[in-house]
Amino acid sequence: MNNFTFYAPTYFAFGKETENECGKLVKRFGGTKVLIHYGGGSVVRSGLLERVKTSLKEESISFIELSGVMPNPRDGLVYEGIDLCRKENVDFILAVGGGSTIDSAKAIAAGTVYDGDFWDFYEGKPVTEALPIGTILTIAAAGSEGSPDSVITKEKGMLKRGASGEAYRPKFSILNPALTQTLPAYQTACGITDIIAHLYERYLTNTTEVEVTDRLIEGLIASMIHEGPRVIENPDNYEARANIMWAGMVAHNNICGVGRSQDWTSHNLEHELSAEYDCAHGAGLAVVMPAVFTYTMKQDVMRFAQIASRVWGCQMDFYHPEKTALEGIERLRCFLASIGMPLTFEELGAKEQDIEKLAHTACYGDGSGSGKVYGFTTLEQTDVENIYRLML
Amino acid sequence: MNNFTFYAPTYFAFGKETENECGKLVKRFGGTKVLIHYGGGSVVRSGLLERVKTSLKEESISFIELSGVMPNPRDGLVYEGIDLCRKENVDFILAVGGGSTIDSAKAIAAGTVYDGDFWDFYEGKPVTEALPIGTILTIAAAGSEGSPDSVITKEKGMLKRGASGEAYRPKFSILNPALTQTLPAYQTACGITDIIAHLYERYLTNTTEVEVTDRLIEGLIASMIHEGPRVIENPDNYEARANIMWAGMVAHNNICGVGRSQDWTSHNLEHELSAEYDCAHGAGLAVVMPAVFTYTMKQDVMRFAQIASRVWGCQMDFYHPEKTALEGIERLRCFLASIGMPLTFEELGAKEQDIEKLAHTACYGDGSGSGKVYGFTTLEQTDVENIYRLML
Repeated sequence: MNNFTFYAPTYFAFGKETENECGKLVKRFGGTKVLIHYGGGSVVRSGLLERVKTSLKEESISFIELSGVMPNPRDGLVYEGIDLCRKENVDFILAVGGGSTIDSAKAIAAGTVYDGDFWDFYEGKPVTEALPIGTILTIAAAGSEGSPDSVITKEKGMLKRGASGEAYRPKFSILNPALTQTLPAYQTACGITDIIAHLYERYLTNTTEVEVTDRLIEGLIASMIHEGPRVIENPDNYEARANIMWAGMVAHNNICGVGRSQDWTSHNLEHELSAEYDCAHGAGLAVVMPAVFTYTMKQDVMRFAQIASRVWGCQMDFYHPEKTALEGIERLRCFLASIGMPLTFEELGAKEQDIEKLAHTACYGDGSGSGKVYGFTTLEQTDVENIYRLML
Repeated sequence: MNNFTFYAPTYFAFGKETENECGKLVKRFGGTKVLIHYGGGSVVRSGLLERVKTSLKEESISFIELSGVMPNPRDGLVYEGIDLCRKENVDFILAVGGGSTIDSAKAIAAGTVYDGDFWDFYEGKPVTEALPIGTILTIAAAGSEGSPDSVITKEKGMLKRGASGEAYRPKFSILNPALTQTLPAYQTACGITDIIAHLYERYLTNTTEVEVTDRLIEGLIASMIHEGPRVIENPDNYEARANIMWAGMVAHNNICGVGRSQDWTSHNLEHELSAEYDCAHGAGLAVVMPAVFTYTMKQDVMRFAQIASRVWGCQMDFYHPEKTALEGIERLRCFLASIGMPLTFEELGAKEQDIEKLAHTACYGDGSGSGKVYGFTTLEQTDVENIYRLML
């Protein structure tokens, strides 16, 4: 196990009607002038926004609003938010929505207190300072409610890039599973897929003897295999929603990823697809993951055989472990299909003739990249092209 | 799943030589005058205390010392520590040791800033304020390095009682697995047993549909089954020590116990044994757990069958699940024996003729108890006596 530090000081209020605590929690963590940041229709239509405002008013906390966050959140709205926060002396940002809204809120929070261009953080500058952030989560997926991460898309060139730093951990996150019950099946399944990806990409490590974190990851994936079909069958299943929501946080706050190298190849290759075709991140991951795993499996066949056996219920073929490993990847594909996820490039609206360009951007970015994708294995542009071709 | 809050804002520095960070961490969390609290010989002999002092001096942090913590830490030393902290204007307590030392430090931290008798907290008053605490862990067991809990024994009447509160979460904890390599096999096994008990007592719930936390707990127990024999065979196995150390924290910071009722019957019944006979807490638990589980199994046979099947590798007997459940408990016993733990009352130095008195104290405490032990099931004094008899 590698040396590590772990610091996850987010306060979680979990369960029914917990959104009504938001005023008290903003106050507890020092907010006096709040920017409520959200996407659009559903937060308003469901009455959630009104409940949030009522809770803030009850604590005499003043607020302004900025809506319009879209999936794969853009830098344009971030700049708008930064200007607004500075002009209005906002001292706390409350994100009401899913990962996109929270990621956008994080970027605004860092940009507001930074002299330069907030995009610097998305080109590698560590985030050391930001306005305090609170979240009210409406989609179990990204794990941004408990993570130090944020992903933003730069409109010019459609570059999708991540930033990270301790200051990005929310002060509090409110997780009410009932708020996710109105989510369409497709988006629910995209969320489950994203959670599974966060787990697989921690699982695929070159660090040896990490049994505890291996077992935690396996347990979380197994629980998603159990809960996924239940919630697709019955979207109102509160208990299944609750399990998925907590798993989404635990999967990505890194308690099960400490002390081990991680992968993130699937996320990197997917980011090119959702930036280019604006497909849902989870749907992109469903297409990308099996291809990446099949291509990189030879790096450590036993690791794939282990997860196939322990999580997917495959009988271990002790004489041909690669068969077990492949069977595990195939069961992952079947599971993703069973919850309604796409499996091919075409289903995403992606085009074969773009493969070279996609692979080039994945490897070189906007010119600043190294020419390689680092992770469980190191991939050259030709490797990435081969992987994208496996998705056809 | 029940509504819950989860807030675990402890900073963890994990790995080789991390104790040398303690000066910087005390400074980061605002300490200027430190009480170093520890047990005795080994912390001094190993040179750890000197390294801690050097690290504090490098940051120009002044300190005083209070040693003498014993297993099953006593109130006498706590009172001494409180007087010392007040007299010397201590503003930060650094515990260097295992769970006993950390628990003693927590009691001192709360007592120093409290007008009344610190024992009030151990009779049920919530801990809302305490001096900040840091820990350097030398035994993987109690999980006190990441928990809001503390257990102290009142010398008068030998009452062993717990207290809890947010203010008891350490500001930072330093976990260097190498510091545990000199621990004798018996104490190491006691620690592993305590970790397993923390997991079982969260597993035994009357809350339904808690798949995610079930799976996390199962994974952690499975990893202890894997790592335990490795570290008993080779005490210098750093990797096994590292896995056990991280599991000890995760098992008890409650990330896998949220939103579900918990048990704690085994801990309650064990506390009477270690208070009366001063046996090691883990050794007591090894004797208590199989008896408690056998007696309370009928409350939810399927829960015991599930852990037997998923964790202990028992083949499920679908027509007689109680056989599978019992087989799981038997495998737990065998595992505990295999790492050198006692299995009977006699091996602990406990006496059959004390059973009525032990059961009475467990149920009624020093007179303030309700006459019952609440947990996975509700036990009367006669039940508790029956359970103790199963240990003969």
